[in-house]
Amino acid sequence: MTDSELAISLADVETAARLIEGQIVHTPILRSRTLSQITGADVWLKFENHQFTASFKERGALNRLLALSASQREKGVVTMSAGNHAQAVAYHAKRLGIPATIVMPRSTPNAKVDQTRVFGPEVILQGLVFDESKQLAMDLAQERDLTMIHPYDDPAVMAGQGTLALELLADAPRPEAILVPIGGGGLISGVATVMTALAPETEVIGVQAERYPGAYRAIKGESPELGAFTIAEGIAVKAPGEFTLPIIRDKVDDILLVSESDLERAVLMLLEIEKTVAEGAGAAGLAALLAYPDRFRGRRVTLLLCGGNLDLMVLSSLILRGLVRSHRLVRVRVEIPDLPGALGEVCRLLGELDSNIIDIQHQRAFSGSSVRATGVDFVLQMRGAEQIEQVLDSLARKGYRARLVEG
Amino acid sequence: MTDSELAISLADVETAARLIEGQIVHTPILRSRTLSQITGADVWLKFENHQFTASFKERGALNRLLALSASQREKGVVTMSAGNHAQAVAYHAKRLGIPATIVMPRSTPNAKVDQTRVFGPEVILQGLVFDESKQLAMDLAQERDLTMIHPYDDPAVMAGQGTLALELLADAPRPEAILVPIGGGGLISGVATVMTALAPETEVIGVQAERYPGAYRAIKGESPELGAFTIAEGIAVKAPGEFTLPIIRDKVDDILLVSESDLERAVLMLLEIEKTVAEGAGAAGLAALLAYPDRFRGRRVTLLLCGGNLDLMVLSSLILRGLVRSHRLVRVRVEIPDLPGALGEVCRLLGELDSNIIDIQHQRAFSGSSVRATGVDFVLQMRGAEQIEQVLDSLARKGYRARLVEG
Repeated sequence: MTDSELAISLADVETAARLIEGQIVHTPILRSRTLSQITGADVWLKFENHQFTASFKERGALNRLLALSASQREKGVVTMSAGNHAQAVAYHAKRLGIPATIVMPRSTPNAKVDQTRVFGPEVILQGLVFDESKQLAMDLAQERDLTMIHPYDDPAVMAGQGTLALELLADAPRPEAILVPIGGGGLISGVATVMTALAPETEVIGVQAERYPGAYRAIKGESPELGAFTIAEGIAVKAPGEFTLPIIRDKVDDILLVSESDLERAVLMLLEIEKTVAEGAGAAGLAALLAYPDRFRGRRVTLLLCGGNLDLMVLSSLILRGLVRSHRLVRVRVEIPDLPGALGEVCRLLGELDSNIIDIQHQRAFSGSSVRATGVDFVLQMRGAEQIEQVLDSLARKGYRARLVEG
Repeated sequence: MTDSELAISLADVETAARLIEGQIVHTPILRSRTLSQITGADVWLKFENHQFTASFKERGALNRLLALSASQREKGVVTMSAGNHAQAVAYHAKRLGIPATIVMPRSTPNAKVDQTRVFGPEVILQGLVFDESKQLAMDLAQERDLTMIHPYDDPAVMAGQGTLALELLADAPRPEAILVPIGGGGLISGVATVMTALAPETEVIGVQAERYPGAYRAIKGESPELGAFTIAEGIAVKAPGEFTLPIIRDKVDDILLVSESDLERAVLMLLEIEKTVAEGAGAAGLAALLAYPDRFRGRRVTLLLCGGNLDLMVLSSLILRGLVRSHRLVRVRVEIPDLPGALGEVCRLLGELDSNIIDIQHQRAFSGSSVRATGVDFVLQMRGAEQIEQVLDSLARKGYRARLVEG
């Protein structure tokens, strides 16, 4: 396919940038010294999670809304999304005085429904999965004469997303590689269009969750095989679009897949090191950098923290899981005599060993070699593997049988 | 006191800015639309938590290190700190090839000790409280002929911290008020020196934890009365310094006190809305804005997210406490018959009411009007007060006694 047959060109993105300027946040890009040290690459982060609704989706949604005719504006728009695109359309439609209808799958978390409702659109919770919501949105578009604002497969949306790439080229040294999360392919279509035109030596690499390798398989001509839950629900899209796929095929150098644990680790590192909240999809670039370090060592790599909408409950669980994974939180089962004073003695010992007790559970019925003894599970804060050994040894020397309880 | 009798002047801060330029991060400042809506003020945030060691302390520490003579550099430096100043000195001393000794109180969390050790200084864990560590550091300075890098009461440190104010005046519209956390007063001394000289109409307002109102009381001539644990341990300092107090007295317009719950709420709002991690002290400005909204309504207010080093375990607890406070996480005790199938029925009902079950605990021995019934505590994710009513009503209609368990 030649460039002129593709859905968008650099000029479309440049026009979008002029149209949306001042109505979206020009987000900062910063070098990360620590992530550079850890990965061996020269790592730059674009904090796109600082957009008002905390994702890049505003760029495309706004560009599409600005392309409506006067009569389309008056009649209103409809879209389907469980997440960031819903917020983006709801917010900018309200700002521009355009009536909006948002169809969300019934499984959408309450927090995301509320964050969309706050802008006052009509929200319809219908459909078990995205495709059912999409069908309803298409039906509504027809019945009520509304304009569909597709989350990714629309040239105006794609061009809008590409404005992010113009900003990063203007603000920071030119990357040798840029890692771009792919769901339906809207973001990477826009970014790849800009990079191949203005920075052709930059490698544009897509990232997908291995549980949702829609674009990866489409490029390879395989039919999609979709997985279970992923923390990167923002890129859990079955297949790229008709407009996005040709651009991905033409302009994207490679697509890397990342596992759930890569994604979780990346979210946690961004939180702990960069002090920033990225959702799973927003951390996918770092996940790929962690999963394929050899590929990027010594090169200047830009990561797009493209969204920051992570449920607080999920974040809290993720922190605890990360602490367990890095041996900073462990569960130790200690067998103690079922007598007054015994628990106090063990607690005192753990305190002397600088190990903070987070939780205690007695396993009176399910453990213990004797009815006069009881198993007690301690959840302990630790510095790492070395301290764990020390604690187990010290307990043993005092005559307490103790072992790590995994999983 | 006239300006010439004060420890630092605008010229000192401007010199510091030239000296440290390129060796610290020029941190971004962004307007927060959502916090502006919530508070009624025009809120700007300076993301100083994007410094490499995630706090402003690098500015002052580096400026002080650069003022050392060649022979002082060779002999090395010593400091005492449980937190951000320790990391700042350790990092820049290493970078500049200056030997560093850091005395930390024995109570310092492991994570903070590790984050300091990583830069290779000699770390001495001694003293139960800060004053004991300080004494040891002063003794070491004498014995080993080391230069003390005081965390706040040193003109070069104070001038370094002030460089933050030069950046924000250059990067954003001039604030009508700036809220500055006060511990020992190093940051506010520098900031107030800049603001009174370059933006005299800007109100400079200090913020302290009400559990550690050292500067507040010093200004009022009261002796300090210090509180228990605070989440803002970064500003839990007994009293301002000899150099900082006169500047605070002369150039700071007011000091506001904030409660622990104000601080926790502010940390959580920054996480949820701004997608950024601020430690307690770093969120103190927002805490004050939330606690005294009338004072700032309609005015342009700048907040300094001056530090982001928050223990992950604490962050996880704080998220859960925040969800409980905002009725998004509740504990409901339901009395159910002690028979197969009963629990499943209640769980199904809760699912139909869109309430996600987070945890279940049987209270077999401690509750229940009959031995044939058992109390079950459900921890549930909720949208808010309205949904809670709905769940309790629905359970009652199905014949289940249910009530909220508080605290």
